[in-house]
Amino acid sequence: MTTAPWRDRALPAAARVDDLLSRMTLEEKTAQLYGVWVGAATDGDGVAPHQHDMTADYDWNELITRGLGQLTRSFGTAPVDPALGARALARAQRRIAEAGRFGIPAVAHEECLAGFTAWQATAYPVPLAWGAAFDPPLVEEMARLIGRDLRSVGVHQGLAPVLDVVRDPRWGRTEETIGEDPYLVGTVGAAYVHGLESAGIVATLKHFAGYASSAGARNLAPVRAGTREFADVTLPPFEMALREGGARSVMAAYTERDGVPASADPDLLTALLREEWGFTGTVVADYFGIGFLQTLHRVADTPAQTAGLALEAGVDVELPTVKYYGDSLVAAVREGEVPEELIDRAARRVLLQKCELGLLDEDWQPPVPETVDLDRAENRALARRLAEESVVLLDNPDDLLPLAPDTRIAVVGPRAADALAMLGCYSFPSHVLPHHPGVEMGIGIPTLLESLRAELPDAKFTFTEGCPVSDPDPSGFTEAIARASEADVCVAVLGDRAGLFGRGTSGEGCDVTDLGLPGVQGELLDALVATGVPVVLVLLTGRPYALGRWHGRLGAVVQAFFPGEEGGPAVAGVLSGRVNPSGRLPVSVPHVPGGQPWTYLQPPLGLAGQVSNLDPTPLYPFGHGRSYTSFAWEDFSGPDAEISTAGSYDVSVTVRNTGDRAGAEVVQLYLHDPVASVTRPDVRLIGYQRLELPAGESARVTFRFHADLSAFTDRAGRRVVEPGALELRLGTSSAQVREVARLRLTGPVREVGTDRRLRCETDVSQN
Amino acid sequence: MTTAPWRDRALPAAARVDDLLSRMTLEEKTAQLYGVWVGAATDGDGVAPHQHDMTADYDWNELITRGLGQLTRSFGTAPVDPALGARALARAQRRIAEAGRFGIPAVAHEECLAGFTAWQATAYPVPLAWGAAFDPPLVEEMARLIGRDLRSVGVHQGLAPVLDVVRDPRWGRTEETIGEDPYLVGTVGAAYVHGLESAGIVATLKHFAGYASSAGARNLAPVRAGTREFADVTLPPFEMALREGGARSVMAAYTERDGVPASADPDLLTALLREEWGFTGTVVADYFGIGFLQTLHRVADTPAQTAGLALEAGVDVELPTVKYYGDSLVAAVREGEVPEELIDRAARRVLLQKCELGLLDEDWQPPVPETVDLDRAENRALARRLAEESVVLLDNPDDLLPLAPDTRIAVVGPRAADALAMLGCYSFPSHVLPHHPGVEMGIGIPTLLESLRAELPDAKFTFTEGCPVSDPDPSGFTEAIARASEADVCVAVLGDRAGLFGRGTSGEGCDVTDLGLPGVQGELLDALVATGVPVVLVLLTGRPYALGRWHGRLGAVVQAFFPGEEGGPAVAGVLSGRVNPSGRLPVSVPHVPGGQPWTYLQPPLGLAGQVSNLDPTPLYPFGHGRSYTSFAWEDFSGPDAEISTAGSYDVSVTVRNTGDRAGAEVVQLYLHDPVASVTRPDVRLIGYQRLELPAGESARVTFRFHADLSAFTDRAGRRVVEPGALELRLGTSSAQVREVARLRLTGPVREVGTDRRLRCETDVSQN
Repeated sequence: MTTAPWRDRALPAAARVDDLLSRMTLEEKTAQLYGVWVGAATDGDGVAPHQHDMTADYDWNELITRGLGQLTRSFGTAPVDPALGARALARAQRRIAEAGRFGIPAVAHEECLAGFTAWQATAYPVPLAWGAAFDPPLVEEMARLIGRDLRSVGVHQGLAPVLDVVRDPRWGRTEETIGEDPYLVGTVGAAYVHGLESAGIVATLKHFAGYASSAGARNLAPVRAGTREFADVTLPPFEMALREGGARSVMAAYTERDGVPASADPDLLTALLREEWGFTGTVVADYFGIGFLQTLHRVADTPAQTAGLALEAGVDVELPTVKYYGDSLVAAVREGEVPEELIDRAARRVLLQKCELGLLDEDWQPPVPETVDLDRAENRALARRLAEESVVLLDNPDDLLPLAPDTRIAVVGPRAADALAMLGCYSFPSHVLPHHPGVEMGIGIPTLLESLRAELPDAKFTFTEGCPVSDPDPSGFTEAIARASEADVCVAVLGDRAGLFGRGTSGEGCDVTDLGLPGVQGELLDALVATGVPVVLVLLTGRPYALGRWHGRLGAVVQAFFPGEEGGPAVAGVLSGRVNPSGRLPVSVPHVPGGQPWTYLQPPLGLAGQVSNLDPTPLYPFGHGRSYTSFAWEDFSGPDAEISTAGSYDVSVTVRNTGDRAGAEVVQLYLHDPVASVTRPDVRLIGYQRLELPAGESARVTFRFHADLSAFTDRAGRRVVEPGALELRLGTSSAQVREVARLRLTGPVREVGTDRRLRCETDVSQN
Repeated sequence: MTTAPWRDRALPAAARVDDLLSRMTLEEKTAQLYGVWVGAATDGDGVAPHQHDMTADYDWNELITRGLGQLTRSFGTAPVDPALGARALARAQRRIAEAGRFGIPAVAHEECLAGFTAWQATAYPVPLAWGAAFDPPLVEEMARLIGRDLRSVGVHQGLAPVLDVVRDPRWGRTEETIGEDPYLVGTVGAAYVHGLESAGIVATLKHFAGYASSAGARNLAPVRAGTREFADVTLPPFEMALREGGARSVMAAYTERDGVPASADPDLLTALLREEWGFTGTVVADYFGIGFLQTLHRVADTPAQTAGLALEAGVDVELPTVKYYGDSLVAAVREGEVPEELIDRAARRVLLQKCELGLLDEDWQPPVPETVDLDRAENRALARRLAEESVVLLDNPDDLLPLAPDTRIAVVGPRAADALAMLGCYSFPSHVLPHHPGVEMGIGIPTLLESLRAELPDAKFTFTEGCPVSDPDPSGFTEAIARASEADVCVAVLGDRAGLFGRGTSGEGCDVTDLGLPGVQGELLDALVATGVPVVLVLLTGRPYALGRWHGRLGAVVQAFFPGEEGGPAVAGVLSGRVNPSGRLPVSVPHVPGGQPWTYLQPPLGLAGQVSNLDPTPLYPFGHGRSYTSFAWEDFSGPDAEISTAGSYDVSVTVRNTGDRAGAEVVQLYLHDPVASVTRPDVRLIGYQRLELPAGESARVTFRFHADLSAFTDRAGRRVVEPGALELRLGTSSAQVREVARLRLTGPVREVGTDRRLRCETDVSQN
C-alpha cells in the first residue's frame, strides 16, 4: 500500500495540499472553511450576541462526514476541568478524523486575550496593563506560557492579540487594547505574537482593521477615519506583528470604514494583507461577522451573496459555527454564483496551516494529558511581575505613599473587596462564569483589601463599600464618611466591573457616553475628599477616567488597568512600598468627562485651543508615571546633525537612579516633525526603553533613529520620508521633554515600502 | 482719445480682462488678490482671533497705488451709521480707483449670515431656524432683502451662507448651519444663495469643505471623515447651491481632512470645484486661513511657500487683509518660486467678477445714499414670519399650551429678559458690540418677557432669572422656586448666550464637551419641576441640548433656535396661541448629554444598540415638531412598482387639517435603501413640502422621485444608481413613517454625473 502524496511528510506542504485538494469534493473543501461551536447555548443567553439567531441547525454526526475545519472554544464556553476538557477535545478530534474520508482533525481555537480563557487558567493583566508596563520581553514570556498551556490541552490557535489602537476610550474594549499609540501597540503586540507563536500556537491579529475608531465609541458603530489615518495609525501594529511576530492568522473586523465593511473588503484583506504585505496564513471571521454583512451592514441580500462577498474579499474561515459557508455556499458554487476557485483558495490556506501544524500527518495524535495545571506557580509569578510593572503612580504630591506601616486605614469603595475587580471582560470568570452561577472562580484572586491586610500587618483597617459600582445608590456614603473620618488615611478603591454586552461598566459592548467614573463613585470620592482625611485614590479600571474634578485635592492617585489574578498583591505592594511603581500611561487621562474623541496623537490644531474655547490637554499625559525614587538624566548625546533621508543617527542618554531604592525609568523617544506636506502629529512615540536601576546605579541607553521612522503617507498615498527639520525628543512622557536632538534630513523625498525599518534599534549598557 | 479694450463694455468680459491683465505689472495683478481690513483692531481684542499676529504692516496710501482687490467689512467691524458708512465706503472706493493706474475699485464684502452684520440692520433668525422652518421660498425672500440692503450701501459680496452639515452639535457654529441633513441644507442654502444673487450680491459658500466634522467638535480640530462620507454628506449642499443658486464665490475652509488642509488642496479647490463642477467664480480664503497653513497646520515653512501652496490649490483671494499675498509673494514670483501663471489665473477670476459687477466700467460710481434704513418694516415683517415658522413645539402632552389668557405665569430663567437671547454669534450686537460698551443695540428687540406681557395682557406675571446663563451660581434658585410655586404655570426660559471665542455658550469658538444645558440651568429646571407646578420649557439656543432627564415631567417644551429680532413676539405668539407652531427639528435632540458625535444619518450599525449597550436613539428625532391642530393623511398613492435605474415615480398624499384652526404640516419624504454595495443610512431626507392649511382644508402633495436621488458613491468612487429594492417613506419626522411606497429599480448600475437630478420635483394642489 502506498501512502497518498498528501500524507508524505517529505514533500513540500504546497504539493501535499494540492494533492489533497484534488481528491476532495466541493463539500469536503468547503467543510474546511467553517467551525462548529459545540457547547454554545442557542437560547439567546450565550457568550456572544446573536449567538441564537446566527447559528444554523446541523446534525453533528452527519456534518463531520465531510470533515471539519475548525472547533470553537472547547474550553472557553463553559467551566470544564482542563484535563477532562483535553480528553473531550481529543475524543472530538478523533471522531472528526474518523468520520471524514481523509482523517484530518479540526483546528481548535480559543480566546487568550489575557491568558487562556478557560476555567482554572491563569488570569494575567489585561493588554492595557501590558501597555503600561512598557516591557515587551515580559509580555513575550507571558505569551509563551499561555501558548504552552494552550498547546498542552490540544489547542492550535489563539484569538489574540488585539492590536486596535485606542481612538476613543469610551469604547468598552479599550481594556483589551495596548493603548493609544501605534508604536507601543505594535512593539508590545509583536512581542505577544512572538511568544505565542514560539510555543507553536497560531496567533490571530485582531481586529483587522479600524474597529477602535467607531463613531461615538459605540461598539461596531461606523468608523470615521480617512485613508491616511488608517494607514498611519490603525495599520502599523498589524504590519509589525506580522513582520516581527510572525502571526499566522488575522481576524477580519466587524467594522465598516467609510461605508465598506472590513469582512467584505478585498482591498484590505487581499490587496494589502496578502499582495502587499505577503501574508500567507488564514483570515478568520470575527464571530458571526460574515452574517453581519447581510443582517447588520446590509451589503448583501442572500446568504449565498453574503458568503461570496466575504470569500471574495478574503475571509477564509467562518467562525464560530457554520451558517453562511455551509450548504448554501455549496449550492451557490454549484449554481455558478460563487466561483469554486474562491473555495479552493481558502481551503488551500486552511490546509496549508493544518499541514504546518502536523494535522495532515498520518501519525497525528491529540494530546491526552493525565493532569493539567493551567495556573502553575511559574504563570502566577509572571502574572505578579507584569502586574507590578503595570501599576501607574499618577500623583503623589506630598509623598503620602508609601503608606506608613502602622497607620489607621479606611478602605472604602466597591472595588476593594471584589476579586473580579482585577479581571477584564475576556477573563474566564468575567466572560463565562456569569452564565454558571454557583461555579467556583477556579483560580485564587486576592482582593486588594486582603492583599493590603497581608502587606501591612501592623496597620488598622476598616472597610466599607460606600456605593455599588454602577447603581446610583448613595446610601452607603454616610458610613463611608464615618470610616474615613476616623482614619489617618482613606484608600478609595474605585473603578470598573468588567463584563460583556451591558453587564459591566467596561468590556465588549459596555461603552460609555463620557469618561466620568461609573455610577456615583465620583460623588463618593467627593464625599471622602470633603472629610479632610488624606485620600489615596486607587483605580482598578478598563479605561482612563476624567480626574480633573479632584486634581490637587487627593493625597495620591494610583491607576491600575485590570491587573489580573496577582493584581491585589501588586497594587497593595505599591501602596506599602514593597513595589516601586514603574508603570506609564498607555492612554491619556483627561480633565473632564466629555469632549471625546481625543488621544495624544494630534496635529497642532488638535491641541490646546487655538481657536476653540476647549482645551483638550490631558490631566496626565500619555507616557506619564511616577516613582518612589528619582532619576537624573546625564550625558545626553544628540548633536545637531544633517543626515540623508535614508540615514540613521544615534541619540543617547545616561539615566542614574539618584534615590535610595531600586526603581525603573522608562525613557521615551518622541518624534516632532515641524513641517510636512500633510499635517503631522505634534509628537509621536518612536522608541522607548524600560531601565531597571538599583539605587545609585545608572545605565546608558542609545536609540538608533533611522529616517524610515519619520515616514508617513503622503497625499498620493505613498509612504515617504521627506527632507527637512526633525526633532527627536527624549522625555519621561509625551508632554515632559528632557532632551532634544535637532536633525535635518537632506536629499530627495524617499518612498519606503514594506521593508522599511519599523523601530529604533536600542542599546543599553549598564554603567 | 480711444478707450482701452478693457473699458469697452461691448467686448466679452474675458477679452476685457485679458487686455487688462496684459497691461498690469506683477504688483498690480497681485494687488487684486488681497483685501484690507481698514478698521480692524490689531491689539489682540479684535473681532477675529489671530487678528493681531496675522496682519501685516502697510501704508494705506502707498498700498493702493497698486490697486486693491478687496475691502473688508467696512460696516461689520465697528458701529457705523449706515448712511455715513456708505459715504465713507464710497470715499475709500474713489481713493482706491484714483490711486491706481486703472481706476478699479475694490470688491467690498461683509458678513451676512442672518442679516447684514451691520449696526442698525435687521437681525433675522439664524440658519438653524431656517432649517426648522422647512420653507426655502421664505428664506430666499429674506436673502433678497439682505442683498438689497447690502447693495444699497455699496457692498458687493456677502460671506454667506454656511453650508456645513452638522456632524456633531457640540460644535459652537452649529447655530450657523441649517441642520444635520444635506438635502435640507442644500435646498434651503440654495434658496438663500438665489435670493442674495438675485439682488446682485455675490454669495459666498462656506466653509468648503468639511469644517463641521472636526474631532470632538472643537473648532478647527482635524476632521475625521472618509472620502465617501465627504462626497455624500459634506459636498452635496455646495453642489446644489452652485447649480441651483448660482453662487459666484466659495470660501476655502480652515479645516484639514485626513491631514490635508482645504486651503492647500488642489483636488478640492481646483479638480472638483472647477474642473468637475465647472465653477468660474472666485475662491476666497477664510480670514487668516492662508497663514494658518504655516502657523497652525504647518504644511509650509515660509510665507512664500505658504502663498504658493494656497494659490496653487486655488485660493484666489487672501482675506481679510494682506499678509501672504503681498510683497513676499511678488518676491517669490520674481525668484521663480511661484509661477506667475498662478497669479494670472487668480487675478483673471477676480477681475472677471469685477467686470461682471460693473467695476471695470468707466462710468462706475459708488452709491451715495442720503438716508439708509437697514431695518425697514418689510424686513421686520419677514423676520417675524420666519421666526414664527421656525419655532418647534417639541412636546405638549396635556395641551398645556396655548396658555390660558388670564393665568398666573411665573417666568423664570436667564434668557427671558435679555434681548441678546434672540441673536446668534454673527449678529452685529453679539459679534461686534461687545467691543463697544455703551453703544446702543441699534435695533429694537423685544425680549420674550416683554412679548409675553404684550401677548397675554390679562395674565399675571412674575419674573426672576433663577441663575445666570453659564456661571454655576444657584443662589437665585430659592426665589425662582418661590415664584414658580405661587403661579399656575411656570415658563422656564433657558438657553444659550451667543458669542465669539469663549465669550458665549454658543457660537464660533464656543464649543462644548457635552450637550448638557449650560451652567446650572439644568439644576434650575430640576428645581422648578420639583415644585409640582406645570413647567413650560422654552429653549432659546444655538444647538440641541439633551432633554431626557426631564422627559415626561414637563408640561410642554418649545424649542427656538436664535429666532432674531422678532423672536420674542414669535415665541410669545406660540405660547399664547396666536401662532400655531409649525417648525420641525433640523437637528436631533438627544436623551443624554454624552455619546457624541451622532446625527440621524446612520447605517444600521449606527442605530440603537445591536452590539453596544448604548442606545443613541434621540429623544426627539430629526424632522419632529407638533402643532395645535391635527392633520389626516389621506388617499396615499404609492403602488409597488418597478422602474429603471434611470426612471422616475410619483408618490402622493392628501393632507387634511382636521382641527379647528389653521396650521402647517411638513410632509417629509425619506429614502430607505435596504441593500447596497456599501452601507447606507437607514433613512435620509430626499424631499419635503410645507403645507399651510386653513381649518378643514386639504392639499395634495406629489413628489416625483427620480432614481438619481438614490445615487451614492460606490467603492470605486463613482456616483451610481444601483438596481434593487427601495422604500420611499412619507412621514412626519425621520422616525414617524405614515406611508411607504415600495420600489424596485431594475437595469444596470448607472453612473451619474454633475447633471443628475438633485431634488424631487414637488407639486401641490389645494383641494
